[in-house]
Amino acid sequence: MAPVPKTMRAVVIDGPFDVKVKQVPVPKCEKDTDVVIKVHLAGLCGSDLHAYRGHEDGSGYVMGHEVIGTIVEAGSAVANFTPGDIVMAPFSVSCGSCFYCDQGYTSRCEQNKCLTGGQAEYFRMPLADATLFNFPPELPEEVALLMTDILPTGYSAAMNARRLLDDPLVDAWTLKDAEAGTVPKKGVAVVIGCGPVGLCAISSARSLFETVYATDLHESRLALAEKHGAVALPLAQLREEILKVTNGRGADAVLEVVGHESAVLDALSLVRPYGAVSSVGVHTRNVTIDGNILYDKNVRMQFGRCSVRTFFPAALNVLKDNLELFKSFVENKVDLDEAPEYYKLFEQGKVAKTVFDMSK
Amino acid sequence: MAPVPKTMRAVVIDGPFDVKVKQVPVPKCEKDTDVVIKVHLAGLCGSDLHAYRGHEDGSGYVMGHEVIGTIVEAGSAVANFTPGDIVMAPFSVSCGSCFYCDQGYTSRCEQNKCLTGGQAEYFRMPLADATLFNFPPELPEEVALLMTDILPTGYSAAMNARRLLDDPLVDAWTLKDAEAGTVPKKGVAVVIGCGPVGLCAISSARSLFETVYATDLHESRLALAEKHGAVALPLAQLREEILKVTNGRGADAVLEVVGHESAVLDALSLVRPYGAVSSVGVHTRNVTIDGNILYDKNVRMQFGRCSVRTFFPAALNVLKDNLELFKSFVENKVDLDEAPEYYKLFEQGKVAKTVFDMSK
Repeated sequence: MAPVPKTMRAVVIDGPFDVKVKQVPVPKCEKDTDVVIKVHLAGLCGSDLHAYRGHEDGSGYVMGHEVIGTIVEAGSAVANFTPGDIVMAPFSVSCGSCFYCDQGYTSRCEQNKCLTGGQAEYFRMPLADATLFNFPPELPEEVALLMTDILPTGYSAAMNARRLLDDPLVDAWTLKDAEAGTVPKKGVAVVIGCGPVGLCAISSARSLFETVYATDLHESRLALAEKHGAVALPLAQLREEILKVTNGRGADAVLEVVGHESAVLDALSLVRPYGAVSSVGVHTRNVTIDGNILYDKNVRMQFGRCSVRTFFPAALNVLKDNLELFKSFVENKVDLDEAPEYYKLFEQGKVAKTVFDMSK
Repeated sequence: MAPVPKTMRAVVIDGPFDVKVKQVPVPKCEKDTDVVIKVHLAGLCGSDLHAYRGHEDGSGYVMGHEVIGTIVEAGSAVANFTPGDIVMAPFSVSCGSCFYCDQGYTSRCEQNKCLTGGQAEYFRMPLADATLFNFPPELPEEVALLMTDILPTGYSAAMNARRLLDDPLVDAWTLKDAEAGTVPKKGVAVVIGCGPVGLCAISSARSLFETVYATDLHESRLALAEKHGAVALPLAQLREEILKVTNGRGADAVLEVVGHESAVLDALSLVRPYGAVSSVGVHTRNVTIDGNILYDKNVRMQFGRCSVRTFFPAALNVLKDNLELFKSFVENKVDLDEAPEYYKLFEQGKVAKTVFDMSK
């Protein structure tokens, strides 16, 4: 392997709507459970936009949390990986043995940190043994990159919705059944938000629901949603259509992948009584809900960050079942220097999935 | 049977904090699926207070929705009941065959009406065949009355919480397993609100959770909660205790039986990440939630009105397992003429479960 340099290029956030590519020090292992990865590809993710739009505190740090690359340094306690391994880094760190990890809730690991620092030439990954995945060599790297965040996240939106819909009044099944593909498709689902995670949610929902609808404020995204198998319509039209196909009841499940109050309220207005609202959008502001809706619709909701490791096998099935579709999923593979421009375009909904390529 | 008179006494709401006992016409069957019941006992329920406090529109109608009594008239299409039968009337009407009833969601039956009119000497019950239950003669009537609303409602709060806690990541079980008592007790639950429904929720939660805590703004109610087997503490003390017994994580599940924003927010602050919030309180106003909590705690929530028929068998088990406790559950059995006074005392949290007795 080539020697590791002292400095590297990295995408640094300096304030709202202000990211720059800067020279910064290359990270080193800080603990014996860390590894350092030479990044091949780093994704630009919808949740990067929360920081970009100034909805999260802090600046001066390196952006990015979707990484595929080669390990160049491994701490002495790392047992599962060695330098030279090509690995995928899920966007949240997990220890593999705490109260939450034991139950599969890796996104709330007691040592959890939400990763950042991936949009750079080198990247330090803590708790490597229980966090990283080996790269599946049968997949193109830019397809495998989707497994570090957005495909499991989209899958969890669909799976949580399907689970909430199947009360244990009658049905009994586990995630293992879903992985084996034996959970029967059921009901009408709506995906609100057709960005990259939304598209992953659509493909996932198609494995768990009979019919999948989708909507987005950016009408240009509806064509992509259709490509993934959804019936995609602007909101007003969708509302009419859903009422028509459900005898006026509303959708059985709504998947909210936006992370905004208005999307939650749209979900609650589209869902039928005793339906499911499943949200993986990052919420940073208040959500005000009319209590009459909560009570009168017997609403069930699940919010929060995906436990990537747990949903990984089932999401990988979705990816493999739709491989041709996902091969063309990454719209732009660009040099890291183009990050400021692509952040701008992505924030405006003008580009779909974008990846920074440092493999050359 | 004695002849049915033309008029009767009934508790009529005339406006906020204003109920009166008036002479009104005795109801008759309006459809061939109706019955008319001579009321023995009618409960005063926490949810009557929403109308009493002026949180719901309308006035001039007869209050009450918990009834046990004898059928005195049956429509020609009623097959399951005949005059002379002693029956229990769950608080929501169900047809037994629509989209919702088929799934056990009887509280959202397509012909659902929330009943009112029970606090009177006679009471008309629509859709009698798929709504009423035969009175189990082995129970005292005032104990059986709890089965028309608050015991199934308390049970549903506990069951929904337990279900949400058991993701199908690992566990697979149905309501039948809960009815058979084979669902293992698990976790730390908190019940917010120790009025009559709260006490039923505590007894139910004890059948599904390892440890049950409870809290109420009225400290006088905490002793009753202890009697039902909860560790009952004022909120600030409860918060400390829960953190202590869960290694700082928070409660596995919180049951909210109040129906107020502050109770939901307390629930969300007490629950741990990936925990369950189960609400059966009647919400009539806005609930504003910090989106960071929804996302960062991966919150799961279930709201809404109990499907009494569905939870009836499991709730009846709870009642029978705690029969001595529930025999002294009704604190006051008073004449209908005392309704204005007892509404006032109940609204102020000064009396526990109160029943209007028309059996003499």
